[in-house]
Amino acid sequence: MFVLGLDPGVSRCGYCVLAKRRGRAEVRALGVITTDPQLPIHVRLAELQAEVRSLLGEHPISAMAIERVLFQVNVRTAMSVGQASGVVMAEAAVSGCEVVEYSPNQVKQAVAGYGSASKEQVQTMVKTLLDLPEIPRPPDAADAAALALCHLAMEPVRHAVTIASGGRR
Amino acid sequence: MFVLGLDPGVSRCGYCVLAKRRGRAEVRALGVITTDPQLPIHVRLAELQAEVRSLLGEHPISAMAIERVLFQVNVRTAMSVGQASGVVMAEAAVSGCEVVEYSPNQVKQAVAGYGSASKEQVQTMVKTLLDLPEIPRPPDAADAAALALCHLAMEPVRHAVTIASGGRR
Repeated sequence: MFVLGLDPGVSRCGYCVLAKRRGRAEVRALGVITTDPQLPIHVRLAELQAEVRSLLGEHPISAMAIERVLFQVNVRTAMSVGQASGVVMAEAAVSGCEVVEYSPNQVKQAVAGYGSASKEQVQTMVKTLLDLPEIPRPPDAADAAALALCHLAMEPVRHAVTIASGGRR
Repeated sequence: MFVLGLDPGVSRCGYCVLAKRRGRAEVRALGVITTDPQLPIHVRLAELQAEVRSLLGEHPISAMAIERVLFQVNVRTAMSVGQASGVVMAEAAVSGCEVVEYSPNQVKQAVAGYGSASKEQVQTMVKTLLDLPEIPRPPDAADAAALALCHLAMEPVRHAVTIASGGRR
């Protein structure tokens, strides 16, 4: 099972592709998509679209894990995060992959064991769980890895709940 | 010259394709793209993407006119408008068309003659300028038509300013 964790943004979009093998998560891709701030916003969004499409094409990804944004400091930031998330979510749908949103607290709970963990604690757990030589940089890449790890941890629970409630997945 | 005015939204996205012929604007397409609220957001965004792609494919559109969002009542609305606008702007870039953002005041000024015009005054002017039997419904369609009209009115000015400043268009 492959999952793509994404921390959407127009300037920097963190990504992490994890494969689950024998109960362990293996990193298949990890990094940040950046777009040129000199270019018009629509051109940057199209670049982001192309990069995410190629990630979805290169790996047999069945789910995209993305942060549920509940609050933003200002409307400009919310619009920009919204624009990037709209583009990547549409690409996920086109490629036939599921999109699952997780709140920051769910990610902290799943990765560090408690919902009020600090950003540093989550990043250290990402390094440990993925057996990386160091914490992924920039933080957007680490955040994307945490989202992917959160999905791998939550997926069996979501599955069980769906079966128990007789719902469709 | 063809322009596509868009009033982006996930539930309702107003659109209007205008062609400029002998100094007059002619309506080539006018309406609203709706998506099923029962479907997951990423599937709805992909539907919006497909509809906008088909509008861009059906008409030789050189520019997309879209509202510059400066303020939203809450972050959820901003996110949702942002997601829809991200999807449509990326599609514009992919199809090679320019994207121009206009503030609500620029639209009112261009269509109704003054920046503090009411929504009703703008809608009535849309009906008059496009020689329509009635005001387009729902309002999202009328808003998209106002954006397209605004672009047709502003384009010669933008062009002249760009030439005067020696900039690239």
